Amino acid sequence: MRKKLVVLTILLLCLGVSLFAQESLESLGFSLDVVWLFIGGILVFIMQAGFALVETGLTRAKNATNITMKNVMDFCFGAIVYWAIGWGFMYGADALGGLIGSDQFFHSPMALDIETGNFYKSWFFQVVFAATAATIVSGAMAERTQFKSYLIYTCFISAFIYPISGHWVWGGGWLAELGFHDFAGSTVVHSVGGWAALMGAIILGPRLGKYVKGEDGKVSVKAFPGHNIPYAALGVLLLFFGWFGFNSASTGFATVGEGGIWSGLAIARVAVTTCLAAAAGAAAALVFSWIWFKKPDASMTLNGLLAGLVAITAPCAVVSPGAAIIIGLIGGVLVVLSVEFIDKVLKVDDPVGAVSVHLVCGIFGTIAVGIWGNAEADGVLGLLHGGGASLLGTQLIGILAVGAWAGITSLLLFTLIKLIFGLRVSAKEELMGLDISEHKSEAYTGFQIFTNT
Amino acid sequence: MRKKLVVLTILLLCLGVSLFAQESLESLGFSLDVVWLFIGGILVFIMQAGFALVETGLTRAKNATNITMKNVMDFCFGAIVYWAIGWGFMYGADALGGLIGSDQFFHSPMALDIETGNFYKSWFFQVVFAATAATIVSGAMAERTQFKSYLIYTCFISAFIYPISGHWVWGGGWLAELGFHDFAGSTVVHSVGGWAALMGAIILGPRLGKYVKGEDGKVSVKAFPGHNIPYAALGVLLLFFGWFGFNSASTGFATVGEGGIWSGLAIARVAVTTCLAAAAGAAAALVFSWIWFKKPDASMTLNGLLAGLVAITAPCAVVSPGAAIIIGLIGGVLVVLSVEFIDKVLKVDDPVGAVSVHLVCGIFGTIAVGIWGNAEADGVLGLLHGGGASLLGTQLIGILAVGAWAGITSLLLFTLIKLIFGLRVSAKEELMGLDISEHKSEAYTGFQIFTNT
Amino acid sequence: MRKKLVVLTILLLCLGVSLFAQESLESLGFSLDVVWLFIGGILVFIMQAGFALVETGLTRAKNATNITMKNVMDFCFGAIVYWAIGWGFMYGADALGGLIGSDQFFHSPMALDIETGNFYKSWFFQVVFAATAATIVSGAMAERTQFKSYLIYTCFISAFIYPISGHWVWGGGWLAELGFHDFAGSTVVHSVGGWAALMGAIILGPRLGKYVKGEDGKVSVKAFPGHNIPYAALGVLLLFFGWFGFNSASTGFATVGEGGIWSGLAIARVAVTTCLAAAAGAAAALVFSWIWFKKPDASMTLNGLLAGLVAITAPCAVVSPGAAIIIGLIGGVLVVLSVEFIDKVLKVDDPVGAVSVHLVCGIFGTIAVGIWGNAEADGVLGLLHGGGASLLGTQLIGILAVGAWAGITSLLLFTLIKLIFGLRVSAKEELMGLDISEHKSEAYTGFQIFTNT
Repeated sequence: MRKKLVVLTILLLCLGVSLFAQESLESLGFSLDVVWLFIGGILVFIMQAGFALVETGLTRAKNATNITMKNVMDFCFGAIVYWAIGWGFMYGADALGGLIGSDQFFHSPMALDIETGNFYKSWFFQVVFAATAATIVSGAMAERTQFKSYLIYTCFISAFIYPISGHWVWGGGWLAELGFHDFAGSTVVHSVGGWAALMGAIILGPRLGKYVKGEDGKVSVKAFPGHNIPYAALGVLLLFFGWFGFNSASTGFATVGEGGIWSGLAIARVAVTTCLAAAAGAAAALVFSWIWFKKPDASMTLNGLLAGLVAITAPCAVVSPGAAIIIGLIGGVLVVLSVEFIDKVLKVDDPVGAVSVHLVCGIFGTIAVGIWGNAEADGVLGLLHGGGASLLGTQLIGILAVGAWAGITSLLLFTLIKLIFGLRVSAKEELMGLDISEHKSEAYTGFQIFTNT
Repeated sequence: MRKKLVVLTILLLCLGVSLFAQESLESLGFSLDVVWLFIGGILVFIMQAGFALVETGLTRAKNATNITMKNVMDFCFGAIVYWAIGWGFMYGADALGGLIGSDQFFHSPMALDIETGNFYKSWFFQVVFAATAATIVSGAMAERTQFKSYLIYTCFISAFIYPISGHWVWGGGWLAELGFHDFAGSTVVHSVGGWAALMGAIILGPRLGKYVKGEDGKVSVKAFPGHNIPYAALGVLLLFFGWFGFNSASTGFATVGEGGIWSGLAIARVAVTTCLAAAAGAAAALVFSWIWFKKPDASMTLNGLLAGLVAITAPCAVVSPGAAIIIGLIGGVLVVLSVEFIDKVLKVDDPVGAVSVHLVCGIFGTIAVGIWGNAEADGVLGLLHGGGASLLGTQLIGILAVGAWAGITSLLLFTLIKLIFGLRVSAKEELMGLDISEHKSEAYTGFQIFTNT
Repeated sequence: MRKKLVVLTILLLCLGVSLFAQESLESLGFSLDVVWLFIGGILVFIMQAGFALVETGLTRAKNATNITMKNVMDFCFGAIVYWAIGWGFMYGADALGGLIGSDQFFHSPMALDIETGNFYKSWFFQVVFAATAATIVSGAMAERTQFKSYLIYTCFISAFIYPISGHWVWGGGWLAELGFHDFAGSTVVHSVGGWAALMGAIILGPRLGKYVKGEDGKVSVKAFPGHNIPYAALGVLLLFFGWFGFNSASTGFATVGEGGIWSGLAIARVAVTTCLAAAAGAAAALVFSWIWFKKPDASMTLNGLLAGLVAITAPCAVVSPGAAIIIGLIGGVLVVLSVEFIDKVLKVDDPVGAVSVHLVCGIFGTIAVGIWGNAEADGVLGLLHGGGASLLGTQLIGILAVGAWAGITSLLLFTLIKLIFGLRVSAKEELMGLDISEHKSEAYTGFQIFTNT
């Protein structure tokens, strides 16, 4: 009897310890995931500073306060609005057959439990993505947009435009059902911002003096060089820095997945593909611009780096390092061609090349999944890896659907803003610079600046 | 017999594996906590760059080298002094009934064990907090303080002033015993820095030409606009970035707490409240300054963002997202009122608004715990959540006690420095700018600058 | 029978749960390590921005675009080349008796498994170290090197020079076998970059007007002050920030090591020593330059901070906080002496002091291991801790061997580039500034700048 009691005691002890360990393990894994999404969140957050610096550096000194303020405030208004409305549309319970999320508006629980787990774990990581989509637009509309009107736009993209198409792909909506693959948001984030940027730039029209018709009827295109290239370079490096979080933390968790012990490596593989595509994008744009324009152009090269990043954003988790380099190289060439085409042929004035970087390369990156995708376990096999054209077809559907949504809604939005509030500052204010005309202060008090270069 | 042996063997194996797993689990959890505090530490560290940029951007070009050097060196001197003396006063074994810590001065162990565990795990995270308190002061005393005297001040605040009141709240001292709640340091860090900033600015007196008495006897207040708004904006974004570590990592650990599996979420909830309060602070300051001054003022808005951050620092872990927005909105309005009041009514010259941001909003944030606190499990229930006025009373005691300590000691310190070494540069040096007069070099060699704007 | 069955079932359940927990624990630990190296990687990555800002800030405005572009592009070209060639030489299977690694060139696997585990886990953390070595050189060769030639150099250092000596120490090569200890790379990274910087600066020759022979035959040394001290200070703070990853994540893992539960603390101890050495370096350089030059020199102080960081890089994991302060203090004095010696006595023109910071203090830091090393468990005991002179001897062998390798190969490389492509821009281009002559654009369009100060 005594022996049996001993055995039983040991047995129960074992079971207790084991089950406790098992539960603690799950808790620990959960904590690691929370930390991981926090890391991802702060990295994407600092991309706001990156965008602010790139856009400030590539535009003129007389608008520097204005453009930085737009970048700061689109995050601030966007965060509140995304909390109140956007999150619910994007990640609330699915409604209308995959079209929108439908609850968790103004969500403000105190409890930390299974009900609030996903909201708290993910909200910060999600809001910084929403802010990225919003802030892309400020560059394309720089140096001539009213501050007030920009703030109104930013509330609408953060509350409705971005979250609803986001729901389709990442919120379990109809494109997710279809098998559309956009790992970190070439389409969901960058193309959406890019479409809004394009529509904004078209409706606004070019900056004064940008396209001047000569006496011979020919239009000459003037370049307005940015006022601080080190700002632009620092901005691009901060974006690159943050993008590692943007892409790697889009795994959503750091703990073990279905792939067993090695699944945590997915994080690391994404960091490798992201790094190489960006490097290749910069290298390609440098070499291509050097050959074409006979100079290693700084702003083209910096945009090439961003092009590589945008292009790898969708496929970063399903392609090899070698494929990442190819995708980056193509992105880098594409952005140079696109900047020239939009500027010289379409004559749409996009001061920082935002449409080329985010829309054109966002579309290319989404297509790249259908070509170089090589992750059989995830059902993502592209043209070059035996998947045929079916994935490519799905990717195109996603590009078109999200493009139609974002393009049409932002067109409507900017048109309405223009009609109701006015979108553009007056010619006098534009020449004076938006810092003085909108904010009654200079960005660089004490410095001698020629404001109409 | 053989069967019994088999059973026994399996039993012991189980027990062994279980116990080993249990121990490994604890080790793994400990490692995760170490990583988490490391992440918090580097995030708070980079706030030094944020402060440097905000203060440089909001002051004049002729003092840019001096202000950045003050920000770099207060960290460097402060770190050594905090290691030698400050840590011991703050986290050494309690003495004098909760008044000071009393050992671990010049602590330099090699061993990694239970004796040194807390020192090594926490020191880096703690030193960056000490540096934050110290560096707040440089902004309020900018453009007229001797470099040498500033360095002396910084050693004393890092060695004595900050650590001793810090011990009361975070080192297990008497305010901790009383139930005073200051999660990440609205009072412990920001108010302490703010009180020193206020005392420093008063004892120094205003910059030359700041308050000029006209012939009619009326004093006119001159504004000295900052020389680089993009610096200030980048600085604020870096502070925002770092603040996520400041607040979220103040949990102290990432692993499972008493709340079980979901306790890791506390980190994430803090990130949400921090984000929303900052956004609301900026939005409120923007709108309020727009209405009041008829312009969306850049420096007011940036200070509004910081105001929201300072205000949420104490209550970030015990309030809901909705309450965080309310706290941020109030902070944003408060900072605008305070900046105007201190500048125009009190006529204390605080070039960057440090007193309004850190002291006024630090006090408000500490009070906010007593109003919106809603964490029953932690015994933190404020006025609006059925806690009555008792918590509010405790918060007020903490505010007054820490305020009396920091205010009086810094007043004494600056007075003594003034008497012994001198605190202010000469009028000639001030007009020339501190870059030339103190460091014999310009910040922007080659640029044409009007230094007395 | 039934009882036995129950016992057996419980037994097997226990065993199953235990073994599963054990495996999950390993997986979780692996994931934590992946996250830890990711954190280290992004921190070292942002050091590129730090270098770019330091070098831009400490040189003249007319070369600002050029120097930032060099810093961006050495990372981009370097990353691709390090992936294609460098990684294989550094971490491929050992060949030629510890001299080189020999496989994993153009490594592009999709699988995440034991074969690819180390590649994916480590590659990103390793490529940023390679980029650090490469980018050190740009500062020493600033303001007069052809852009194209710099890009060629950067490919060779990232493909061959850095990885091969790196293999000796970190790839399991002959110096590792010998017991040479360089925890995070005072020699492997900083001295290698420093040697290349020295050779480059010598072969290039000084900037025009730097050393002018007067009529009396005496050579006067002209200082070219940097054009933006806040850039330099921000750059140094970003380097400091990133260096915490550089040193702490060089543990390679965050999980439990042989030291048991407390081994995770190694990360934290490294953060403490790194912080204190940097602070001491800045403090020493400040005080020393203040005494010597009668002014608290900004660029000397900033270089002093970096000197402390470089010096602590090798010994950061094997010395106490107190020793770290001593090492930092010596580094800070050393860098001031070295900058003066190289500039005034050797008359080698190193515009930012890169050789003094990275080579001189890299050598000193490596020696410091042999003096203050105090980690018996790791077999690292220096002169002051009863280890005798044997470790010091090994450290000297490492310094000489790596120095000979890096010095001779970079001398050859720059000589060949000079002969084949040309290394230096023309005198006319140098006077005009490299922004206009190389990139056909100004860095600061609209600003009034005196370019030949």
